[in-house]
Amino acid sequence: MYTDAATNETLLLEQKAIRLRIDSIRATTAAGSGHPTSCASAAEIMAVLFFSVMRYDPADSRNLANDKFVLSKGHAAPILYAAWAEAGTFGLDKLLTLRGLDSDFEGHPTPRLPFVDVATGSLGQGLSAALGMAVAARSGQRMYVLLGDGESAEGSVWEAAEIASAWKVGNLCATIDINRLGQSQPTLLQHDMETYRRRWEAFGWQALIVDGHNIPALLEAYQQADRVTDRPSVVLARTIKGKGMLEIEDKEGWHGKAMKPDFADKIVAVLEQQLKKNPPLTWHPKLPQRVTQQVENQAKHVLSVPPPYKPGGNVATRRAFADALAAVGKTDPRLVVLDGDVKNSTYTEEFQKAFPDRFFECFIAEQNMVGTAIGLAAQGKIPFASTFGSFVTRAYDFLRMAAIGGANIKLAGTHVGVSIGEDGPSQMGLEDIAMTCAEPNCTVLYPSDATAAWRATELAMQHHGPCYLRLARPATPVFYSADESFAIGKCKVLRQSAHDGALIVTGGVTLAEALSAFEQLRGEGIPVRVIDLFSIQPIDREELIKASREVGGIVITVEDHYAHGGLGDAVLAALAEDRVSVHKLAVREIPHSGKPHELMDRYGISARHIANLARNLLRQPSDRSRAS
Amino acid sequence: MYTDAATNETLLLEQKAIRLRIDSIRATTAAGSGHPTSCASAAEIMAVLFFSVMRYDPADSRNLANDKFVLSKGHAAPILYAAWAEAGTFGLDKLLTLRGLDSDFEGHPTPRLPFVDVATGSLGQGLSAALGMAVAARSGQRMYVLLGDGESAEGSVWEAAEIASAWKVGNLCATIDINRLGQSQPTLLQHDMETYRRRWEAFGWQALIVDGHNIPALLEAYQQADRVTDRPSVVLARTIKGKGMLEIEDKEGWHGKAMKPDFADKIVAVLEQQLKKNPPLTWHPKLPQRVTQQVENQAKHVLSVPPPYKPGGNVATRRAFADALAAVGKTDPRLVVLDGDVKNSTYTEEFQKAFPDRFFECFIAEQNMVGTAIGLAAQGKIPFASTFGSFVTRAYDFLRMAAIGGANIKLAGTHVGVSIGEDGPSQMGLEDIAMTCAEPNCTVLYPSDATAAWRATELAMQHHGPCYLRLARPATPVFYSADESFAIGKCKVLRQSAHDGALIVTGGVTLAEALSAFEQLRGEGIPVRVIDLFSIQPIDREELIKASREVGGIVITVEDHYAHGGLGDAVLAALAEDRVSVHKLAVREIPHSGKPHELMDRYGISARHIANLARNLLRQPSDRSRAS
Repeated sequence: MYTDAATNETLLLEQKAIRLRIDSIRATTAAGSGHPTSCASAAEIMAVLFFSVMRYDPADSRNLANDKFVLSKGHAAPILYAAWAEAGTFGLDKLLTLRGLDSDFEGHPTPRLPFVDVATGSLGQGLSAALGMAVAARSGQRMYVLLGDGESAEGSVWEAAEIASAWKVGNLCATIDINRLGQSQPTLLQHDMETYRRRWEAFGWQALIVDGHNIPALLEAYQQADRVTDRPSVVLARTIKGKGMLEIEDKEGWHGKAMKPDFADKIVAVLEQQLKKNPPLTWHPKLPQRVTQQVENQAKHVLSVPPPYKPGGNVATRRAFADALAAVGKTDPRLVVLDGDVKNSTYTEEFQKAFPDRFFECFIAEQNMVGTAIGLAAQGKIPFASTFGSFVTRAYDFLRMAAIGGANIKLAGTHVGVSIGEDGPSQMGLEDIAMTCAEPNCTVLYPSDATAAWRATELAMQHHGPCYLRLARPATPVFYSADESFAIGKCKVLRQSAHDGALIVTGGVTLAEALSAFEQLRGEGIPVRVIDLFSIQPIDREELIKASREVGGIVITVEDHYAHGGLGDAVLAALAEDRVSVHKLAVREIPHSGKPHELMDRYGISARHIANLARNLLRQPSDRSRAS
Repeated sequence: MYTDAATNETLLLEQKAIRLRIDSIRATTAAGSGHPTSCASAAEIMAVLFFSVMRYDPADSRNLANDKFVLSKGHAAPILYAAWAEAGTFGLDKLLTLRGLDSDFEGHPTPRLPFVDVATGSLGQGLSAALGMAVAARSGQRMYVLLGDGESAEGSVWEAAEIASAWKVGNLCATIDINRLGQSQPTLLQHDMETYRRRWEAFGWQALIVDGHNIPALLEAYQQADRVTDRPSVVLARTIKGKGMLEIEDKEGWHGKAMKPDFADKIVAVLEQQLKKNPPLTWHPKLPQRVTQQVENQAKHVLSVPPPYKPGGNVATRRAFADALAAVGKTDPRLVVLDGDVKNSTYTEEFQKAFPDRFFECFIAEQNMVGTAIGLAAQGKIPFASTFGSFVTRAYDFLRMAAIGGANIKLAGTHVGVSIGEDGPSQMGLEDIAMTCAEPNCTVLYPSDATAAWRATELAMQHHGPCYLRLARPATPVFYSADESFAIGKCKVLRQSAHDGALIVTGGVTLAEALSAFEQLRGEGIPVRVIDLFSIQPIDREELIKASREVGGIVITVEDHYAHGGLGDAVLAALAEDRVSVHKLAVREIPHSGKPHELMDRYGISARHIANLARNLLRQPSDRSRAS
């Protein structure tokens, strides 16, 4: 009996694998582009995972209790779509809309599809996401991820491998589809399975070598993975690219190429001959345990206390951010915090002390930190990942993919700008506004004092979607009282009169400079308006236009950031159609080590420079009259 | 005799190590900040490398034949500076200027100093640079790199490790200063030396475990590294953070903290007691073989042939870029090309076929590819590294450090924008202008046709410093004849009349759209001017101001890039003070899969949208009169 059942299951899964191959060919040939050979090597792996190993509800793919699957080799999207179609989640006809302008079945998977949790397609990112999903898993839930062999060269894979074993994440199971061929040539290791095994074992994983087209061997490997609970497992599947596709099996030059219809028909005909008319078994999903939606999914975010800072004090915005995290942590169990071995600089160690089991030390591996955050968010957590703003650049590709997937992650970049001082340019975040605002759905907040930083943290928590908080190192004056209100997309007008001759827009550490310049200018009878931008993206276009018109169209922007793509450019874009005159003060060269205020002065963003510029502009009668 | 000599050398090196510790303490205490404990763990390693192992000329640190040293753990800069001072390159007094505003002895090393080849300070980058330097080495030359243990968590380290062994780079010797303590807590592996060994061996390296404070053991390890020539070697040095610094040895909480003067004096006094009055041996440098400057260092770049494209044809700019590389390769031996397993998409396989020994397949590991390029450039090569524009984001931190170091690297990003079509947003470079232009010394060229792309490649070759070439996937019309001249910082005015009512500025694939809009508008009696920007950074501010004034201050920008930080923002910034009205057409949401032209139309950057916008603007008499 047992043997018969096993044989029948093998037959069923073989049939499923053939169907997945056929579906992948039909979809890519209909689209006229795509990666059928990269699907073919994974057909048995996908069949075994989707139709035997994984517990999930095909009718409820978003169920947070499902076993989850991440397709790290996102270019094999057609076989992912085919697996869900074969599972009955939608009709097979939808597969033929692949890559169409109005189809959600895109070239690479995105969460526009309800069965996709994270966007993939930039290689080497899926393992980090699966790791994040695994640490956020419900009882008994397992996370599966399929990587290509080519993407094993991405360092981010080894960051995730190291952290997953250090954290002893036993419910994470990776599979590598080792089909020997990359896009442009054979991979580095080709079918050197033993070297794969040595590397993964050295990184602390259970590593299982199997023939990736042998269904009983795959079933046994996943059972063995399930049995080992103190570390993650990787199934190293030796496969053939284009398997089952006649003369293009294991051939170079077929990566990312759809077959012409005639050739596709020929191959599909051969595959169809292998389909049994009367399958021995009908597939029924193994449903997950129906968990009650857990408390964190309905939690309303309420801050337990107002920001505790008093105007006149001096507090760094990074400190207030960490204070706010610790406060929010008390009322919202969804909040989790990640840091890259700078928690005594970002001060997230405060959160760690209060909530050690919701804090993830990710060490010096920022790509995996952000990828893990994406996975945590996919499971309903609200992750804040913090490091220096300069090192957020390390994870830019992960942020880019988070934006594509609309992931609900929050990044905090501290130590931005030349105002960090003596550590020098390698530690100064000077391009972080450019990189984060470029992503059109990324909210970017730049608080100028501790109270604003506290509220920015709260707003990021409440907002769904990627957010970036720009935070400074130095202790700076507290300007706002605890009852000041802040909103995403709204600026604060801090100084104004009916006779303002220019508008100064700034944020962060340079607000104090702008206010100092304001005082100097006021003493000289030159009134100016000062705006604290706070929300760089979205930007308060309405108030900026109103203010710039009221002052006669002369605007000065000041920022501790490089000139291109920063706060000044965001203001410029907001006013672009309005015929104003915008003068940007920003860091325009690679800076040097030095003391914070020396550097702000040398690079032209101190009060002295602001006041000088305003003075010069307002002494040009031609400019003023032209505006009137 | 031999034993005496060995003993005397050990004594000499012990004395040097003590001096390096003292120098590091004095410098950081004078600066009031820095990382003395991270220097202390490396004192014997540095003494052995600088005063026994390495062959170099302290009086000529830029000599391309020197053995080279890269300090990947850049925060230990004071001990690097101390080593060169002790070698006699400059006076010890200079060390006390550490971190000062006008000192080149910055918080982390930069090539402002003649003995620093690449900027470090963002961890995990030095190994890639040393790898690039090693493959470009002269006969007999060896490359040394010192990593921290904390930075071993960076995936880029494992990218470099895999590639260095695959390439059998036997003249590369890494040392890991395994001092057990990171910034905020112990490292993942602490002193688990065997796991380090297993990992490095699995990645194909000779791995040698030593006591990092035992000078004879270190000397033996470097000799053993020298003996193995078919693979790189790593010295895994077990060390103590703060070694020799009394009660702060091996203590948490001392990362990145300078000692107060009293405490420093106490420790220095103890160290000074260990200095011998009459050292047994005087150090003399082991000079390198004086190589004749090789031909590539004086080579004048001359293109062998003019661009071969004819107006009226259709050629992708990526294709012309690769054609130009193959042509330049014939006349300039400095040119080397790197690619990340997309050489059949970037077409750099053309160069590989012509010059296989000057082509480096870097597989899917973009960080290491760019880091290797930085190292190649440091040895006098001119490296072009190519991948999709989207995946350049992967290496943003490396580009950032290249900019800080002024590295002479050239990056080419192909497949930019929605015009790639069906592969979807994960493969579309839509933030590459934002990220590259943010670096103030990065030249960014965006050729609009094949001839311009050929010339852009030539210009990048001739220009010293980081450059980015933005290249498109689709075949697009050739506009320019072979004798058209292009320059960095200069745009091309393609259509103009005395009656133009608006200026359209664009580049790349949207130039054809702008010219099509121009034709439509001309048919309607609406003359507009069209500029092909070509050089986004530096930008042709003079011509843009002139043109915008001549058309009455109405400007339309069009780009296949996200709205923030792109071509439009560069134009806006150039015209910011000039009271013009700028209207940006750009991709303003996460795009979808689809056909190239469908996507350009859906996201508002096609000829139809340009013509509509111009029409609407020029029908607003209020706007025109306001400008007059």
